[in-house]
Amino acid sequence: MIINIQAIGIIHTDHTSKEHSPIQGVFHPDATGTVELFPEFAEGLLDIELFSHLYLFYHFDRADPGELIRYPFLDDTPHGIFATRHPCRPNGIGITVVRFLERNGNRFTVKGIDVLDGTPLLDIKPYIPRFDCHPEASEGWFAGKNNRQKPVGRE
Amino acid sequence: MIINIQAIGIIHTDHTSKEHSPIQGVFHPDATGTVELFPEFAEGLLDIELFSHLYLFYHFDRADPGELIRYPFLDDTPHGIFATRHPCRPNGIGITVVRFLERNGNRFTVKGIDVLDGTPLLDIKPYIPRFDCHPEASEGWFAGKNNRQKPVGRE
Repeated sequence: MIINIQAIGIIHTDHTSKEHSPIQGVFHPDATGTVELFPEFAEGLLDIELFSHLYLFYHFDRADPGELIRYPFLDDTPHGIFATRHPCRPNGIGITVVRFLERNGNRFTVKGIDVLDGTPLLDIKPYIPRFDCHPEASEGWFAGKNNRQKPVGRE
Repeated sequence: MIINIQAIGIIHTDHTSKEHSPIQGVFHPDATGTVELFPEFAEGLLDIELFSHLYLFYHFDRADPGELIRYPFLDDTPHGIFATRHPCRPNGIGITVVRFLERNGNRFTVKGIDVLDGTPLLDIKPYIPRFDCHPEASEGWFAGKNNRQKPVGRE
């Protein structure tokens, strides 16, 4: 079952190489970026400024699906791809939670962004802590794993 | 720019009609469901049981893209589609945070699920509170909006 989706805009950031782009936005809370919607979708941004945090959905356009069991960036034990946030997944859909700064027409600025410059935007949803914040969730294998340089060869 | 994605499995729930399916999983914390991966993707579930909470990404297969400004389920004021979680969006990609219960091969059970029975599964990512929990986020127009029957005609 093939599903067609389309880019609705482009995410502009200072992260120009995979090697140096952040592993997660929370590790780079001050990294700013600009989200540009294609003009035909701009109307859908009405009231976006009511929210302090947004989910950005995007396409991992520079990552191909890879092995189903693999080494992630933050651990030296392999895990199933669905137990990781690695970009090389069967469907290359990424999400990141960013802080909304300011909108100007079809563009808005955000903070805490971890995606590569030029990444195709797929969707934006408001982050609602009542629905999306689960402080009791376990950390799984991420427990105690802190930010580090991406190991060479992990893509 | 068209991007092809594919279903990697099917989500089975007790929610058989749009009218009676939950608006958000948090409003129905005890609703259980089964996530079935197609066998060729099952290997990617290795270590999924390390996590208490998962993001499920799915396709809103019974919702078409609609107007960019619309009435959501929980408010009687229209908002831009990107300031809502409504299923009728330019790219019909949904997410829900569920609690993991138990895995048996290529299937696992979850709690707190709000999707329609038979929904195509697109991705699974572990929910990591350090990355994904932002209790300081504003509620925007969702503030004070509680669960209710879906108003007629909101699709």
